[in-house]
Amino acid sequence: MLSEFDLIKRYFQRDRAPGPNTFLGIGDDCALLSPTPGKVLAISSDMLVEDRHFFAGADPFTLGHKCLAVNLSDLAAMGARPLGFTLALSLPVAEPDWLDAFSRGLFALADAHGCELVGGDTTKGPLNVCITIFGELAPGQALRRDAARAGDDIWISGTLGDARLWLAARRSEVALDAADHAATGQRMHAPTPRVALGRLLAEGGLAHAALDISDGLVGDVKHILAASRVGAVLDVDALPAGPALARQPVGLRRRFAAAGGDDYELCFTAPVAQRDAIVAAGTACGTAVTRVGSITAEPGLCLVDADGAALDLQLAGWDHFSPG
Amino acid sequence: MLSEFDLIKRYFQRDRAPGPNTFLGIGDDCALLSPTPGKVLAISSDMLVEDRHFFAGADPFTLGHKCLAVNLSDLAAMGARPLGFTLALSLPVAEPDWLDAFSRGLFALADAHGCELVGGDTTKGPLNVCITIFGELAPGQALRRDAARAGDDIWISGTLGDARLWLAARRSEVALDAADHAATGQRMHAPTPRVALGRLLAEGGLAHAALDISDGLVGDVKHILAASRVGAVLDVDALPAGPALARQPVGLRRRFAAAGGDDYELCFTAPVAQRDAIVAAGTACGTAVTRVGSITAEPGLCLVDADGAALDLQLAGWDHFSPG
Repeated sequence: MLSEFDLIKRYFQRDRAPGPNTFLGIGDDCALLSPTPGKVLAISSDMLVEDRHFFAGADPFTLGHKCLAVNLSDLAAMGARPLGFTLALSLPVAEPDWLDAFSRGLFALADAHGCELVGGDTTKGPLNVCITIFGELAPGQALRRDAARAGDDIWISGTLGDARLWLAARRSEVALDAADHAATGQRMHAPTPRVALGRLLAEGGLAHAALDISDGLVGDVKHILAASRVGAVLDVDALPAGPALARQPVGLRRRFAAAGGDDYELCFTAPVAQRDAIVAAGTACGTAVTRVGSITAEPGLCLVDADGAALDLQLAGWDHFSPG
Repeated sequence: MLSEFDLIKRYFQRDRAPGPNTFLGIGDDCALLSPTPGKVLAISSDMLVEDRHFFAGADPFTLGHKCLAVNLSDLAAMGARPLGFTLALSLPVAEPDWLDAFSRGLFALADAHGCELVGGDTTKGPLNVCITIFGELAPGQALRRDAARAGDDIWISGTLGDARLWLAARRSEVALDAADHAATGQRMHAPTPRVALGRLLAEGGLAHAALDISDGLVGDVKHILAASRVGAVLDVDALPAGPALARQPVGLRRRFAAAGGDDYELCFTAPVAQRDAIVAAGTACGTAVTRVGSITAEPGLCLVDADGAALDLQLAGWDHFSPG
């Protein structure tokens, strides 16, 4: 049986020098992290619980990826450069194969973003993964939710709805062929945090407000509207549906693109004058960007179809404590 | 039924301006924290799980205190000034009375240390509280585990073993009168993080190495010895037993003071020349400090009694994944 100290040493403590912003990592009471002078620290925590955020028996490699991806996505939505993260892990048993795969999935993504594991905690208990992530950015460049302005375009990165489509297939609500099943599963289990795009938007001063779409666009965009005291018109037919979702009937396509959840794409608002620069930023980092609506001075969210006619989709965002 | 957003707003989002080092708190993708120029950030995470770190049905006010206290204790052991923390909370149900008491216990301690809740996450699941805390200190002042030197005195703050005594009473291994039961329960459930002492030791350059004692002194001090590549002689009879433990037989007193766990006192090493300054620092912050041994060039930990004779106590530190 692995001891707690062996577990940390074997799977999470890496035999190499700390990164440029870390001068004390795992193994002391605290990690010591040094943001670049003149930058502020962006911090986010996400807790993922078995049977809630992932299924029992989830593949540990992709779980390791996803747990960090959802945190990197929060940094992306702020426009911050990733520095490091802490990992708190509650495990029913210390199972070597599981830990090996989980830590490989975690570190593959961490290394791709130069984001270092600086500390954490391990304990016995129901499976629970809590990551707190740290990034940095120049003060004033953060893509805050309260910064949208009337007249801004609303943009979406990548595509929406394929993760939700996978869930519908799992629940036997739709049938998918093998290729679409695999592709949508990849979107659900291994989302791509849009870190490079977020940084280009923030560092170039291209966007005003941003957030990452985790609970569905329609529910999430309301946080920008409320914080910025504005409204929006969203063209539901302009939403970039995922490749598998694009092959589904229009009703399903609209619902899953507008309110699917688990997309981890960025929704951001930007002045009309930045359209060309935003397209160039998307090209530079290989991430599609699509204009899907605009911010209005009038409060409220108005969903329209391709002809500009109002749509009533009966959508709701995800709420962890809702009776459903 | 409370929604997730109502829950955060009602119990955790406070109607007041952000603190001096925070310029964006709860409600965005990330919190923004600005350490004082020239300081480095000290970061620690602790995850507390029901039936492992606290009993089912634990009083929520003291649980809120304890979850933050164990994190503040990590900052204390580094000598850092608390800035803020994130809270990730998994709850089986959103129970208003529980949340009210938990948040009051949490904020009472947070306010006493000027430590602000800057963000976090809430979800449904088995009860689990994960706090990540941030402090700051001057580079070079951190009380690192690898900084002990041969000839250093070993010091302990406060008293040891009363939390372990409460656990023994709960397990009916010892009988305590009502006053001792209450006093030891207080030590177990509402430990006092030694933040002021840690800061005085670090900022005054008084100590070399430090850690906080959570798994028992004898197990924990070995982390300093290993990191610093030194040994130690500890006088077990010099250990400051808690008031209730001091009334117990000598065998129990030695075992629980040396290896009880849940003490959250500081163990630190310091040059002999700093003895008077350390006593003065203890007096200045109202925390007892006791010399209990010394660091040796020779590796290994030697426990001795008041006469200097070797003791074999058959002690072990706490390991979350040990078969026991």
